[in-house]
Amino acid sequence: MKKVTIHDIAKELNVSFSTVARALNDHPAISEATKKSVRETAQKLNYRQNKLASSLRSGHSNTIGVIVPSLDVSFFSSVVHGIEKIINENGYSILLYQSNESYESEKKGIETFLNSRVAGIIASVAKETTKYEHFSEIRRRRIPLLFFDRVVESLHVPSVTIDDHKGGFLATEHLIRQGYKRIVHITAKQTIGIFKERLRGYLDALKLYNLPVDESLILYGDFSLDFGRQCIRDLYLREVSFDAVFALEDFTAMGVLQQLLAYKVRVPEEVGVIGFANESFAALVTPGLSSIDQQTVPMGEAAAELFLKMLRSEDLYNNLPKRIVLDPSLIVRASTERLASS
Amino acid sequence: MKKVTIHDIAKELNVSFSTVARALNDHPAISEATKKSVRETAQKLNYRQNKLASSLRSGHSNTIGVIVPSLDVSFFSSVVHGIEKIINENGYSILLYQSNESYESEKKGIETFLNSRVAGIIASVAKETTKYEHFSEIRRRRIPLLFFDRVVESLHVPSVTIDDHKGGFLATEHLIRQGYKRIVHITAKQTIGIFKERLRGYLDALKLYNLPVDESLILYGDFSLDFGRQCIRDLYLREVSFDAVFALEDFTAMGVLQQLLAYKVRVPEEVGVIGFANESFAALVTPGLSSIDQQTVPMGEAAAELFLKMLRSEDLYNNLPKRIVLDPSLIVRASTERLASS
Repeated sequence: MKKVTIHDIAKELNVSFSTVARALNDHPAISEATKKSVRETAQKLNYRQNKLASSLRSGHSNTIGVIVPSLDVSFFSSVVHGIEKIINENGYSILLYQSNESYESEKKGIETFLNSRVAGIIASVAKETTKYEHFSEIRRRRIPLLFFDRVVESLHVPSVTIDDHKGGFLATEHLIRQGYKRIVHITAKQTIGIFKERLRGYLDALKLYNLPVDESLILYGDFSLDFGRQCIRDLYLREVSFDAVFALEDFTAMGVLQQLLAYKVRVPEEVGVIGFANESFAALVTPGLSSIDQQTVPMGEAAAELFLKMLRSEDLYNNLPKRIVLDPSLIVRASTERLASS
Repeated sequence: MKKVTIHDIAKELNVSFSTVARALNDHPAISEATKKSVRETAQKLNYRQNKLASSLRSGHSNTIGVIVPSLDVSFFSSVVHGIEKIINENGYSILLYQSNESYESEKKGIETFLNSRVAGIIASVAKETTKYEHFSEIRRRRIPLLFFDRVVESLHVPSVTIDDHKGGFLATEHLIRQGYKRIVHITAKQTIGIFKERLRGYLDALKLYNLPVDESLILYGDFSLDFGRQCIRDLYLREVSFDAVFALEDFTAMGVLQQLLAYKVRVPEEVGVIGFANESFAALVTPGLSSIDQQTVPMGEAAAELFLKMLRSEDLYNNLPKRIVLDPSLIVRASTERLASS
């Protein structure tokens, strides 16, 4: 006899899978009437909801593992909120693991998830990781795997990212439209794809607006508060003239802002500053830090929805993997608002 | 035949449990010589390290579940880092779950952990939770449970907290020593224990320094950025004279700071502001926000160490539960530094 599933109940009642899953889990968003008819249909079809038993039978649970570099970074914790929202609505639970940017820790996290028999894994790759055997192992076991933001292209699994080129372009274009002309870009020495794309966006904006590309304004290095401070000290030491800074991410931009204020430079009147990622502190500092928002909650929701499709699909990895690329958006705050209207 | 455990290997070699666990997991802190002798002894005693098999046999894994209200709050994410450090060093892995302050979500998290057969659970309770059956269930199954920061006293399980009374006292005493005399305290309407303790610390500091307690300076309400702003607007509307604010936590203090700056009040010259929790943005804002540091990483480490003792103990819940109370510390930044030396 074929096992009765949530899908059978959904078909019988002509409602969605997620409605049935939520009704069975007594979700507050589902009406009592719907819950009642779901329960009655479940009984009629002889559906048995026994999570532990079903997880032992199928070998998998109703749990999804999410592994990220660090939940201290509000970008990741905010994406996780988007994932949680959709995943919980669909009757699954999320367990989280932080790799702390370490390859060894990431491997251990994947192993822990597999031992806990998660139904699938959503991942953003650690900075340190250059070998991907632990990720191929998930694929090999035919367990759904999806990447967001930091992707291993060679594994050919579905992914959700944002358009970092467009983000770099938007940040630079905004500075140009505010009348800034000598725009510094701080970028990473490392060959991380997202930072290369942001640099490419910066260069394309300069070209489009017929501003010269001055190599002395492009600073390659690290990303951190301290590095941002150091960049400003170096620019003053080298007597480079500049009137704006676009930093690859917000902590670096914050260091830039602090050092400029320490030098009594007026922001945004004399120098404009914009970051990237729209970290939670950007709205709290004085002056407020302009930034590029990465649509973190929509990214999490899109990742979760694509992942749920994988989970219900028969040919998990046979089709060409779906790649969703989201648009970033410009957040203007006091640190770049030199003109009344942009 | 009795099953050979890590303890047997530790006894044979006269080293600690954690050394053996780490050696077997190839931890970088353990020397090659030690790893070799551990492996040889393990072989001699016929010890079999098979995580999945052993987890199925014993019913429990090498995984510890940690459930917190939100990893967006740097207090919690920082405590989690302290927990991770010790737990990982001892050969276990951490899985995280966010309750988002919801009772339903907290129940689901506990259920997910139990279904994943975690070896034990470390928890900080959601704001919404007033029934504790899901926590008693962990105890009933004789699975180790430990609370940190937000504790259910009635369950009599071990806990690690900080001395919130002392934190409130230190914040208020610092303001008094900086020459502030009319000190507002913003506290929560809700009957959350930690906030009551901070208020008690405020009152005791005023008494010790012979300052009058003025009820019009104690504001009861919510905790949020918006509430902090609103408090300042209300104080000005009611024409209450004050020269300092001690807010129950940093987001509220940040709202206070922003509204004062919007009113062109000079901080710290005219009004001093101190928060509580030392959130990561406190060091980044201008002026820097003074706060009370809650020793988050030591709290996490102490919680993990006490938890590991439970895990190895025979009579899990028979003894009087151990309660560790840590000391908070004062962090002075520009928002209260009116005098050259305190």
